Amino acid sequence: MLSERLRNESFKERIVSAEQAAMLIEDGMTLGFSGFTPAGDAKAVPVALVERVKKEGNPFKINLFTGASISSKVDTLLSDAGIVNMRLPYQSDKGMRKNLNAGKVQYMDQHLSHTAEFLRSGALPPVDVAIIEAVAITEEGHLVLSTAVGNTPIFAHMAHTIIVELNLAQPLALEGLHDLYMPAPHGDREPIPLKHPGDRIGATTLAVDPDKIKAIVVTNQADVNAAMAPADEETATMANHLINFLRQEVEAGRLGPNLAPLQSGVGSVANAVFYGFLDTDFTDLEVYSEVLQDAVFELMDAGKIKMASGCSLTISPAKHEEVLENLDKYRDRLVLRPQELSNNPEIARRLGLIAINTAIEVDIYGNVNSTHIMGTQMMNGIGGSGDFARNARLTFFCTKSTAKDDKISSIVPMVSHCDHTEHDVDVIVTEQGLADLRGLSPRERALKIIENCAHPVYKPQLLAYYEEALQRGGHTPHVIEKALSWHAKFVKEGTMKA
Amino acid sequence: MLSERLRNESFKERIVSAEQAAMLIEDGMTLGFSGFTPAGDAKAVPVALVERVKKEGNPFKINLFTGASISSKVDTLLSDAGIVNMRLPYQSDKGMRKNLNAGKVQYMDQHLSHTAEFLRSGALPPVDVAIIEAVAITEEGHLVLSTAVGNTPIFAHMAHTIIVELNLAQPLALEGLHDLYMPAPHGDREPIPLKHPGDRIGATTLAVDPDKIKAIVVTNQADVNAAMAPADEETATMANHLINFLRQEVEAGRLGPNLAPLQSGVGSVANAVFYGFLDTDFTDLEVYSEVLQDAVFELMDAGKIKMASGCSLTISPAKHEEVLENLDKYRDRLVLRPQELSNNPEIARRLGLIAINTAIEVDIYGNVNSTHIMGTQMMNGIGGSGDFARNARLTFFCTKSTAKDDKISSIVPMVSHCDHTEHDVDVIVTEQGLADLRGLSPRERALKIIENCAHPVYKPQLLAYYEEALQRGGHTPHVIEKALSWHAKFVKEGTMKA
Ligand SMILES: CC(C)(COP(=O)(O)OP(=O)(O)OC[C@H]1O[C@@H](n2cnc3c(N)ncnc32)[C@H](O)[C@@H]1OP(=O)(O)O)[C@@H](O)C(=O)NCCC(=O)NCCS
Ligand SMILES: CC(C)(COP(=O)(O)OP(=O)(O)OC[C@H]1O[C@@H](n2cnc3c(N)ncnc32)[C@H](O)[C@@H]1OP(=O)(O)O)[C@@H](O)C(=O)NCCC(=O)NCCS
Repeated sequence: MLSERLRNESFKERIVSAEQAAMLIEDGMTLGFSGFTPAGDAKAVPVALVERVKKEGNPFKINLFTGASISSKVDTLLSDAGIVNMRLPYQSDKGMRKNLNAGKVQYMDQHLSHTAEFLRSGALPPVDVAIIEAVAITEEGHLVLSTAVGNTPIFAHMAHTIIVELNLAQPLALEGLHDLYMPAPHGDREPIPLKHPGDRIGATTLAVDPDKIKAIVVTNQADVNAAMAPADEETATMANHLINFLRQEVEAGRLGPNLAPLQSGVGSVANAVFYGFLDTDFTDLEVYSEVLQDAVFELMDAGKIKMASGCSLTISPAKHEEVLENLDKYRDRLVLRPQELSNNPEIARRLGLIAINTAIEVDIYGNVNSTHIMGTQMMNGIGGSGDFARNARLTFFCTKSTAKDDKISSIVPMVSHCDHTEHDVDVIVTEQGLADLRGLSPRERALKIIENCAHPVYKPQLLAYYEEALQRGGHTPHVIEKALSWHAKFVKEGTMKA
Repeated sequence: MLSERLRNESFKERIVSAEQAAMLIEDGMTLGFSGFTPAGDAKAVPVALVERVKKEGNPFKINLFTGASISSKVDTLLSDAGIVNMRLPYQSDKGMRKNLNAGKVQYMDQHLSHTAEFLRSGALPPVDVAIIEAVAITEEGHLVLSTAVGNTPIFAHMAHTIIVELNLAQPLALEGLHDLYMPAPHGDREPIPLKHPGDRIGATTLAVDPDKIKAIVVTNQADVNAAMAPADEETATMANHLINFLRQEVEAGRLGPNLAPLQSGVGSVANAVFYGFLDTDFTDLEVYSEVLQDAVFELMDAGKIKMASGCSLTISPAKHEEVLENLDKYRDRLVLRPQELSNNPEIARRLGLIAINTAIEVDIYGNVNSTHIMGTQMMNGIGGSGDFARNARLTFFCTKSTAKDDKISSIVPMVSHCDHTEHDVDVIVTEQGLADLRGLSPRERALKIIENCAHPVYKPQLLAYYEEALQRGGHTPHVIEKALSWHAKFVKEGTMKA
């Protein structure tokens, strides 16, 4: 029934088609989309916008700001249509990737907690139009958000025009799960009063000026999330290394029996690590993360996780019904926050998170590349990994030790692009093993990373590089003219093997 | 009078010579020294320790943890004596630098806010003995700290043995300036209740278990700070660029008339920037920084700065008397904090700092190297620059566009070591000009940095590199086999000039 979703009769007259809503968007505008990796994203209006622009045939450019990645279809559509000028802060779509790597889209790869601050301080063009998926609009005209919070609060706050996509396919039971808190401008800012992952410090609905809601588009379409790759042997091995290490930390008294709130990145490794906890004695775990994926709910079902705070519910098709149709089961253990809260350095540091993220490559000194293939081609973006890595109590980066049938070593002499500096990286995990870098100098780190994490095929080659570098000396020994030669070789010859 | 300084008679019997105090230190111990860049450092006991070890002639190693840099003499003495195993988190001494670059000292270059957290979580060996300069010991046995706070609170908290250097040469008027606050362990941690640079949230004296004070050494020796290099033409020009930019930000409404609390790094550029404010209309400025150098006090005298919070008073010999003998003049406008507070990400972000730090080199995409010469030789360390850069509202990095008589371009195709990633760098300043990178993609940044910041001698060479890189494409275009060729050329031929 629409009246459950649209609780103020007077709003009914703002219901329009996606095509009509798309007419509110003008050339040169900055758009803020709801959605985070890629739950709760705007689904209809972006598509209608592309159709409109194609039909009109006039030059048309917009800036596209989101929470994180949105549905692949939309990112591809918009960028292939050539209408995206600037894109931020994160994407993970093949089509968008192609376009930004070709320089056709100006992509600004940002820490996910930074976007709201940049908007607030005027360092980015202000958002003109916010396009927001909601599951209901309350009597007062407040929005009940959908499966993600993302940057929606700051977009709605800034925009002069809000287009709501009222998605009937998203469960109304989402209502009450959100906790919306917005830091004040600098100068008047209070400490964020959050002390435990489950603390609620804000409102459950998003208060907006109802006059800004210029269009309501009714949709009926589930989030399009990819199926989660099952843990393969390698990711399962990595998960084991990591969990064994955590066990040892508990034994050594450096972590308590319930560990510390866990943050875990997108992707298969992160999911495998979480699944790994199923076979452990750990209980009463807490999660303070961005994306809450399938494994979180299985761990709740198994009584392992007692509280999970995130920024979105990114549930695979297989789990969709089980989780999204049964939200009441998880209600007391679930909080969804804006990304400037889920990724907030203040909170990450206060709670003392255990941060688990994935790298593309790491170097022998512990620097991490999370974004660029061979130093130049953007994969996705840094996402929230930097928000967490620097502020967590314990920071892991995981990667398979090789890629592309062993033609690439993911442990290299020097990373071809640096996203996480040696100062922010505590532990490296590959399927080969784990290197605990805490308290080590670069020379000590090099030996440990090569010994514990490198693939046997590349170990001798790495040791040879390091030995040669040692001859040159320095705090961080390098043979500077060969530091990137492995990448150069791969680009030229298709392999890093000597 | 000693009784002013040692307010409990019973402590008198713990007064010993530096030689006797040094006997409390055993082989294999971890020592925590007071001192920060290089104010308030332990002066007598380290020297006595080296003499003792030389006399005894037995193998002897200690770990040396400090706040930041300590007096050059001490770092050189200890490392030349071969008794330093591990050194952290920062140094800026020629002798220590030589030894760590030779791999003789295991140096861990850390974010200055991280050390206390690492100690608390057990990620570093615990501190056995703390050697702390104080200006007085109260009736209850609490310490009135000296010209720096640094990591002294956590060292004192952990150590089983405290050696106090009671320095009669440091003014007793320091009492009351300190604000000592220690975050609780993770899990029980409260928000840090600091909302403005001048807020006082802790105690003025350091509470320690009086039984831990095993020795008191009376000293009488001023801090040894280098004379501040006067602003040369280039640093003055950089300061002008930066201050003009701030003026424009105020005009554009992106900053208020009193700006935002200023953080400024060590060194001549930072000092020049502060002196630059003398000739402006700015008033009621606030400082939330690490080191408070000469310029801060001149700006207070000129009525420009109304409040300054820092971690140490690093006053040049020329200003010594004027400032340190007249502390009462500044009393209401001065707070000295532990470095985990002065450099705290939670506070840096809440206050919305303007962070001004110095780079060794930057690349055309805005990545910054603050630490390594030619990718290998450690200069000083990252210090607090990372604590501030990522969390500030506006992050500047300054560098002269060339070094070594123009044989080195400080703007390079790719940094040879990365301390601050493109995600953390807003504005680059050289004597040539300023590049505002906010909201720009890598390709847009490259053109702006080359155009505005590079030295004319290297501009064509940089443009040629970038053009060639563009042929290869990618989000961050590079000619991977040439990305570090400028450094390789310098190492081989002594110049980067083509
Ligand atoms: C790093 C990241 C791309 C890894 O993703 P993933 O899906 O787990 O990794 P995969 O092993 O499938 O690798 C992805 C691709 O990179 C390739 N790859 C992996 N390592 C590589 C390397 N060292 N060099 C070149 N390519 C590599 C893989 O072959 C694969 O290529 P394909 O797409 O052609 O199949 C992803 O985790 C990411 O974007 N992270 C950054 C953001 C982040 O950390 N977010 C979480 C914060 S909450
Ligand atoms: C970066 C840093 C070393 C610059 O210090 P500075 O005293 O202002 O800089 P200088 O211009 O005097 O340069 C120092 C040396 O590096 C050399 N240098 C500068 N740029 C160089 C480059 N691109 N390549 C090689 N050498 C370079 C200079 O020639 C000089 O050499 P010298 O000692 O042989 O004379 C210093 O600011 C630092 O250690 N920063 C990191 C820590 C930090 O930011 N702390 C503050 C946080 S609050």
